[in-house]
Amino acid sequence: MSKPLILVTNDDGINAKGIGALMDIVKPLGEVVVMAPFHGNSGMSHAITVKVPLRYKKLREEENLVVYGCNGTPVDCVKLAVSEVLHRKPDVLVSGINHGSNASISIIYSGTMGAVIEGCVNEIQSVGFSLLDYASDADFSQIVDHGRKIVSNVIENGLPEETCLNVNFPAVKKEEIKGVKLCRQAKGMWKEEFDKRIDPRSGEYFWLTGYFENRENGSTDTDEWALSNNYISIVPVEVDFTAYDKMNHFKKWNYEI
Amino acid sequence: MSKPLILVTNDDGINAKGIGALMDIVKPLGEVVVMAPFHGNSGMSHAITVKVPLRYKKLREEENLVVYGCNGTPVDCVKLAVSEVLHRKPDVLVSGINHGSNASISIIYSGTMGAVIEGCVNEIQSVGFSLLDYASDADFSQIVDHGRKIVSNVIENGLPEETCLNVNFPAVKKEEIKGVKLCRQAKGMWKEEFDKRIDPRSGEYFWLTGYFENRENGSTDTDEWALSNNYISIVPVEVDFTAYDKMNHFKKWNYEI
Repeated sequence: MSKPLILVTNDDGINAKGIGALMDIVKPLGEVVVMAPFHGNSGMSHAITVKVPLRYKKLREEENLVVYGCNGTPVDCVKLAVSEVLHRKPDVLVSGINHGSNASISIIYSGTMGAVIEGCVNEIQSVGFSLLDYASDADFSQIVDHGRKIVSNVIENGLPEETCLNVNFPAVKKEEIKGVKLCRQAKGMWKEEFDKRIDPRSGEYFWLTGYFENRENGSTDTDEWALSNNYISIVPVEVDFTAYDKMNHFKKWNYEI
Repeated sequence: MSKPLILVTNDDGINAKGIGALMDIVKPLGEVVVMAPFHGNSGMSHAITVKVPLRYKKLREEENLVVYGCNGTPVDCVKLAVSEVLHRKPDVLVSGINHGSNASISIIYSGTMGAVIEGCVNEIQSVGFSLLDYASDADFSQIVDHGRKIVSNVIENGLPEETCLNVNFPAVKKEEIKGVKLCRQAKGMWKEEFDKRIDPRSGEYFWLTGYFENRENGSTDTDEWALSNNYISIVPVEVDFTAYDKMNHFKKWNYEI
């Protein structure tokens, strides 16, 4: 049997420490091709690039590993790799390891998870990894074994149709990790606190800042609960956004004009 | 009772014809504030701007209508308007009218729907409108009455918690519109066909192009079916991406390292 073909990407950029750790995780598991943004793409969500052309470049090659950089978003990286670079559709796509949480509502802003959802739409088994440490020198060594076990599970057991995974790791030592919890996405939102400043020409400008507000009331089945209790959270994510259980509400509406 | 406060945005930019039509739709229904990108933001999905500061500018003001432009993405526009500009949380957010379809999987790339989902996360009743005509001079006059009826329904009946709407209009004359269909998001994907070119300095570059591939087998309950049969499609959209019905698959996995 040929080795699985594993596509690696991220949103923190090709030089981030987290994608290095992810390469280490998957190298023993298959043939690895990396296509990641040249620069940071945090907060790019599922954005695609339509105003400027895309370019990519081979950066290095060693046994079982080829690394490319790209000027586009994480989703562009997936599209370019699948359409232009790889000789066949990858068996697995992994994205990350993100520097910082992508739990709860952060999934919708995340470039890491944008790439994962794009892989899923392309019928590739796709998993996003994030560590709850925003530092550029975060310690990813504590989660290598757990990460590799999860990717091995994906390779061995597969993922259900139209389903990908959002995996977040608590920022604790390996021996403090209590295990893996299958979770739902916690209810929550980012509360904005724009940092208003005045430029040297007297123009107002705003930096987007804010803090995460958890809107759960102590439920123990969410990713936020798992992470704050030192569990690794796994949320199965779907690409069909239809609110099936809300359909009835709209049947009573009058649409006549 | 005071008039509803209605926030208007889009992804085609403040000068697009579609947002003008949307202002016409909502002006009779409440106090209208527009905050839209200065330039086109198609394909920006749920992206937020973190590398450059945000700026906004009042462009015009008349009775019941104030118009602002912003250098950010559609999601930035919503965040800035809600946090910095509006005196209270809007009752309704409308986004569009997009020049082109946001049915099926296009929802995940759509800046129009990114703004709508952001509104929903902020507990604002939010609706996205799109017309199946990409032309910059598309004829939006055919759908004004239907659009206003849908916004009126939102104001009168409300939307269920954590639910927003993705409304698409077929590009046909008003008298050819057969009515409104409540739908699910059709299964489908964009198949890439990168347009590879060589620049004057011999560098390769790629333009992202492609075509939509419908993966349904004749189901009549999808947005794609409704639109191709001259119905207006309404898909209720949720912001919880958890694949609840796939949880069991993962319970059999072995996570021991």
